[in-house]
Amino acid sequence: MRNIKIIIAYDGTEFSGWQAQPGQVTVQGVLTDVLEKLTGRRPVNYAAGRTDAGVHAAGQVVNFKTQATMAPVEFQRALNALLPNTIRVQSAEEVSPDFHSRRDALAKTYRYRIFRGRVVSPFLWRFVHQDSMDLDFDAMNEAARHFVGEHDFASFAASTGSEEDDRERSTIRMIYRSEWQRVQNTEPVNSIGPAEEWVYTVRGKSFLRYMVRKMVGTMVDAGRGKLAPTDLPELFEQRDRTKSGQTMPPQGLCLENVEYRDPTNSLL
Amino acid sequence: MRNIKIIIAYDGTEFSGWQAQPGQVTVQGVLTDVLEKLTGRRPVNYAAGRTDAGVHAAGQVVNFKTQATMAPVEFQRALNALLPNTIRVQSAEEVSPDFHSRRDALAKTYRYRIFRGRVVSPFLWRFVHQDSMDLDFDAMNEAARHFVGEHDFASFAASTGSEEDDRERSTIRMIYRSEWQRVQNTEPVNSIGPAEEWVYTVRGKSFLRYMVRKMVGTMVDAGRGKLAPTDLPELFEQRDRTKSGQTMPPQGLCLENVEYRDPTNSLL
Repeated sequence: MRNIKIIIAYDGTEFSGWQAQPGQVTVQGVLTDVLEKLTGRRPVNYAAGRTDAGVHAAGQVVNFKTQATMAPVEFQRALNALLPNTIRVQSAEEVSPDFHSRRDALAKTYRYRIFRGRVVSPFLWRFVHQDSMDLDFDAMNEAARHFVGEHDFASFAASTGSEEDDRERSTIRMIYRSEWQRVQNTEPVNSIGPAEEWVYTVRGKSFLRYMVRKMVGTMVDAGRGKLAPTDLPELFEQRDRTKSGQTMPPQGLCLENVEYRDPTNSLL
Repeated sequence: MRNIKIIIAYDGTEFSGWQAQPGQVTVQGVLTDVLEKLTGRRPVNYAAGRTDAGVHAAGQVVNFKTQATMAPVEFQRALNALLPNTIRVQSAEEVSPDFHSRRDALAKTYRYRIFRGRVVSPFLWRFVHQDSMDLDFDAMNEAARHFVGEHDFASFAASTGSEEDDRERSTIRMIYRSEWQRVQNTEPVNSIGPAEEWVYTVRGKSFLRYMVRKMVGTMVDAGRGKLAPTDLPELFEQRDRTKSGQTMPPQGLCLENVEYRDPTNSLL
C-alpha cells in the first residue's frame, strides 16, 4: 500500500466541518467520495486538524493509503477535477508508510480574522468575523502573550473531546506563538476601500476542540475591558470553561499550516 | 420625492445579473424587494451598469426615488440588515432630484482578473478566471492600447443591446484607459501561496453588452498568437462580431467604480 500525503485548502462555509458524519456534507465525506471514484475504494484518511463547521483551511494536511498506481501529481489533478471549487488540492506526494498527518504533526498554525470596518465586503464575508466596536488592541495582545508556553487549557475547551482524538483526556497544551497583528486589507482588486483587520495567529503543538475560538473570545473580553490580561493565570487555574470568553463564530478561523519533520517523510 | 444614491458591492456568482427578470434571482430584484419592505413601495431604480449573470460589482451606483423620511445612513444600515451578505451598501446619500445613476455617469471602470496559477484558491475562485497557459503579456498590452480612443465597437458587441439602453443603436464608444497589469496575489491571510494575476483595467464613457468580455477574449487571442495586436484596427473596420475573440467567462469581471461630476449631485 502506498501512503499519499496531500495539502488541501477549503472554504468551510458550506461544510459541516472536516469529519465525515452521516447525513452531513463534510470535507472528509466529499473527499472520500471522490477518492472512491478515483481508486475504487474508500480509503481511510486522516487530517492534521479536525476543523469544525464553518472553519476554513489554507494548509490542511491529509494522508491516505492506496494501491492505485497513479503518480502523486496525477492524484492532484484528478482530485481537483472532481472536487468542488471550495476544496482544492495544492500538492500531493508519496510518503513513507508510517507517516500519519495527525500523529506526526509537530505544530499547527491557526489564524482568526476580525474585520474592524462597519460594512464587510461581499468578497470577504465568508472569511472574517466582523466587529467594529471599541476594542483595546494592546490589551488583547497582552492577553495573547499569557497563552504562550505549556498550560492547562481546561478553561478553554469544549465540554468534551480534543481536536485530535476524543480519547485524549489531558487538557495540557503547548503554545509556541500567540499574537495579534493589524493588517490593512489591501486586496489590489475587487476592493471596496481599505479597512483594517485584526488577525490573531496562534501556533501550537496541538489544540483542544473550540480552544482557539474560546481563546479569541477571552481576548476580545480583554479588549472590551471585561477582564484584565493579568486575569489569565487565574483563568488557567480555575479549569472552568464557564469562566472564559465566548466561543467565537467559526468563519473567522482558518487552519493555516501544519509542520512536520520535513523532508524525512517524503519518499522522493 | 427624495432621490437617494447608493453605492453597492456584490458577489455576482449566484445572481442572474443586475436586471430584474421574472423567475430569476437578480441583484435588482433582491434590492427592490428589500426597498419595498423598508418603504412600503417598490421604487423604480437605476444602476449605472447593467451587469450580466455572474459579473461582480465593487462600486455599482444605484438611485431610487422615495417618500420615506429615513436619513441616508439609516437607509444604509437598514438595507444591509435585510440584504444577503453577497450584496452590501457601502454608502448612501440624498442627491438632487434630477440625478440619474446611468445617464449622468461620466466614466465607468471595469476590471477583468485572470489567475495565472494552476490551482485556484477556494478563497478566490468566485472572482477570477483561471488560465495558466502560455500567454504573451506584452502582446496583450499592445492589443489593449489599440482600444483607447473613440472606436466603432460593433465587432465587440453582443448581437443586440447596449449595457445602458437597448434602444441605443450606436456602437461607437469612447475608451479612456485600457491596460493590463501583473499583480502578485499577496492576500496576507488565508493564502495558499503567491500566484500572479493578470488584471485588465478598462475605463470608458460607456460600454456595449458583453463588450469588455469580448475585448478580453480578443486580447487573450493576441496573447496566444492567434492574432497580432496590429490586427485590431482591421477588426474595428470589419464590424463583425464573429471575427473577434470569445466572450470570456463572467466571474473574472467586476464593475469597479462609476464617476460623476462630483460633488454637484449631492444635496449635503
